[in-house]
Amino acid sequence: MRTMFTLDQNDLPKRWYNVLPDLPTPLDAPLHPGTREPIEPAALLGLFARTCVEQEMSTDRFIDIPEPVLDVYRRWRPTPLLRAIHLERALNTPAHIYLKYEGASPTGSHKTNTAVPQAYYNKIEGTRNLATETGAGQWGSALAFACQTFGMGCTVFMVRSSYDQKPYRKAMMSLFGATVHPSPSDETKAGRDALAQNRDTPGSLGLAISEAVEAARGGIGTKYALGSVLNHVLLHQTIIGLEAERQMEMAGESPDVVVACVGGGSNFGGIALPFYRTACEERRATRFVAVEPTVCPSLTRGQFRYDFGDTAETTPLLRMHTLGHKFMPPPIHAGGLRYHGMAPIVSRLVEDDVIDPVAYNQLDVFASAVLFARTEGIIPAPETAHAVHAAVEIARECAATGEKKTLLIGFSGHGHFDMGAYSAYLSGELAQAETYIPLGSASGASCASVTSRLYC
Amino acid sequence: MRTMFTLDQNDLPKRWYNVLPDLPTPLDAPLHPGTREPIEPAALLGLFARTCVEQEMSTDRFIDIPEPVLDVYRRWRPTPLLRAIHLERALNTPAHIYLKYEGASPTGSHKTNTAVPQAYYNKIEGTRNLATETGAGQWGSALAFACQTFGMGCTVFMVRSSYDQKPYRKAMMSLFGATVHPSPSDETKAGRDALAQNRDTPGSLGLAISEAVEAARGGIGTKYALGSVLNHVLLHQTIIGLEAERQMEMAGESPDVVVACVGGGSNFGGIALPFYRTACEERRATRFVAVEPTVCPSLTRGQFRYDFGDTAETTPLLRMHTLGHKFMPPPIHAGGLRYHGMAPIVSRLVEDDVIDPVAYNQLDVFASAVLFARTEGIIPAPETAHAVHAAVEIARECAATGEKKTLLIGFSGHGHFDMGAYSAYLSGELAQAETYIPLGSASGASCASVTSRLYC
Repeated sequence: MRTMFTLDQNDLPKRWYNVLPDLPTPLDAPLHPGTREPIEPAALLGLFARTCVEQEMSTDRFIDIPEPVLDVYRRWRPTPLLRAIHLERALNTPAHIYLKYEGASPTGSHKTNTAVPQAYYNKIEGTRNLATETGAGQWGSALAFACQTFGMGCTVFMVRSSYDQKPYRKAMMSLFGATVHPSPSDETKAGRDALAQNRDTPGSLGLAISEAVEAARGGIGTKYALGSVLNHVLLHQTIIGLEAERQMEMAGESPDVVVACVGGGSNFGGIALPFYRTACEERRATRFVAVEPTVCPSLTRGQFRYDFGDTAETTPLLRMHTLGHKFMPPPIHAGGLRYHGMAPIVSRLVEDDVIDPVAYNQLDVFASAVLFARTEGIIPAPETAHAVHAAVEIARECAATGEKKTLLIGFSGHGHFDMGAYSAYLSGELAQAETYIPLGSASGASCASVTSRLYC
Repeated sequence: MRTMFTLDQNDLPKRWYNVLPDLPTPLDAPLHPGTREPIEPAALLGLFARTCVEQEMSTDRFIDIPEPVLDVYRRWRPTPLLRAIHLERALNTPAHIYLKYEGASPTGSHKTNTAVPQAYYNKIEGTRNLATETGAGQWGSALAFACQTFGMGCTVFMVRSSYDQKPYRKAMMSLFGATVHPSPSDETKAGRDALAQNRDTPGSLGLAISEAVEAARGGIGTKYALGSVLNHVLLHQTIIGLEAERQMEMAGESPDVVVACVGGGSNFGGIALPFYRTACEERRATRFVAVEPTVCPSLTRGQFRYDFGDTAETTPLLRMHTLGHKFMPPPIHAGGLRYHGMAPIVSRLVEDDVIDPVAYNQLDVFASAVLFARTEGIIPAPETAHAVHAAVEIARECAATGEKKTLLIGFSGHGHFDMGAYSAYLSGELAQAETYIPLGSASGASCASVTSRLYC
């Protein structure tokens, strides 16, 4: 049986899809961190490439992908669509399970899809260096690769818990020419303040963002690049879903459920938004499932309100689902999902009942990841494993009810740099890590009491 | 420009190519380790699956791939053919450089191509467990995956230098359900003898083979599987070249040079043999370049004679290029190329001037690997990097002479589990490792004097 659907490279999409004109409710404007008034685009130009700022607010439904970006995309795109027939058999389910496999990219995840255009736009606008943060290391290595490609410098602030867990991610960033600092670091005021409070903090994405923004503002010819959350990042990621739509046609099917993990929302947006558009156009009932970890449940337990994107309150405020910008999640292995906020586009679509958010525990997630690896021979990244687990759960329901649903997983990346997590799981050393402790609660007051437990 | 050529899964080859009837000189028969007389096929049945023994001596030019094997191949095959246009530009060469990318397999190398049929044939013939050795870990993880797929046990003896360098390879084997021992181990007499001689030995493939053969002979329902060298292994690997032939046609080109690394010869045979057949049929002048490390130069400095496949003299003797079965190469990072012998098919074709062997130093090899990673965004395994370096050298010659050659690299695997080697290279800690010290030479008498130097 045919299980791999590869798009010819001549059919690589030439445009990204911009969901902004198709949202049921328009997004609320970002606010200036000082004035709390709607921010002018000009205020963002110090930080981001001009083209990225324009794309952030564009009302064009499709935006052309520049030829030099397509030229780089062609190193690994189109990525394959695979049918997980061996997993289906193991689950004895009538469901059909497809995955859009982004692990084929240079750095093993979807992140390169936006790293390349962000580096390109900065390059042609005269930027010489980019600063950024990284959680699991996927975004940092993607931006390092992109900067290398266009001959730019790259500085990465890597959340300390990941920095310690993943020396090979750091090695990959070095191979692609980036300078990597564990965050919090002594390189910035935000980092020094955090270290003064708690020398042993595992760090967080919110804090690493503060450091990268500070470094970008202080560096000559330096700008900042964000790997998720913002509209233009989700825009660049839609190439995933645009390819997948054509590949599902090749397979002669249409997904009843699209499922992907959510950290900042770019992987989810990338696979889901093109299918959302088609579902609206064709009045098709497609279910969109966004999967997050129980310890960092911004969609399922956060508030929908304005909040900062970073810990040090230097970014514009976005209206989004948030656990509070001071929230410090425990160092679970899915480092890419340890973010207090969520993309405004994803948040808006959750509010409008288009997206179903669910949260799962890391032990249950790893159980499904091991099942997936053993049946399909692909080792999911811990982030991706959240989506795999959700799909396994739905496929099991189908086995119970006899429903023949078609599931599509946005498979964001492979776990080759996360084998330490698999070792810990297989040897029984991985803790349950099931407690979400809200900011300001009695037990949440002391971060150390949470992080001292064996999560990793 | 189109740089990826993907074969439709419906066009997956259904037969392997067997070179034996097409060799210019027939192979010499294997000899029994006790009698030194040509060995009877029946004598091999205690160790190998019956079908593998039949294939080892088959004179059929094409052999059908069983449907259950195709069913597993379809998890990742056909693999992509890529054109390395960004590397070409960096070298400013008129040469066209293609790579057949086997890193897309479940365990990241070509090894699964033979692990799956070997496990399958054993399974249907009643074997319950397979024992094997592994150098870099690529073969061990491939066999672990294959045994997992068919519900069999798997025991792997992993050369100690790799075991210590690559904890994540071990984690992958555990994930796929295998039991892994560092070799030499206390599990076998061969291992105990070696440890008694030198407690700190880095081990070798030859020694690990002795341990695996001993474990297979001693285990109930247990047989042995070899990841390279033998005819049936090269047979299974020809799916690489068979796919690549069709993909080169899609690209509208034909290779002037086919280049691949050689450890035991299976990766090289897999890409080269189908092109050798076509070159003979169409009287085309194709150059076949086999690349080995200078510290383990079986083709360029070994003797063509009968020798054992293992250190403890338990395997049949094969006529091949060998450095002597007691040879203990230094622990370079290309662990998969640390073998004293060579596939008889490859050895024969070197003797008959069909194949050009070359040897390169690991520092030069890593320099080209870093160039390749930075231009193409794919990190080669250290073994694969030898082929990359050879192709880079040829492409540079083309740049100097203006010749517009078409090069095809058999790209055996990615280096995601070898980032420690890249870190060592980038930080300047990788030693030159250029000395080949023949067995029995004055300086070769003390292995410790070699291995105590900083190679890894």
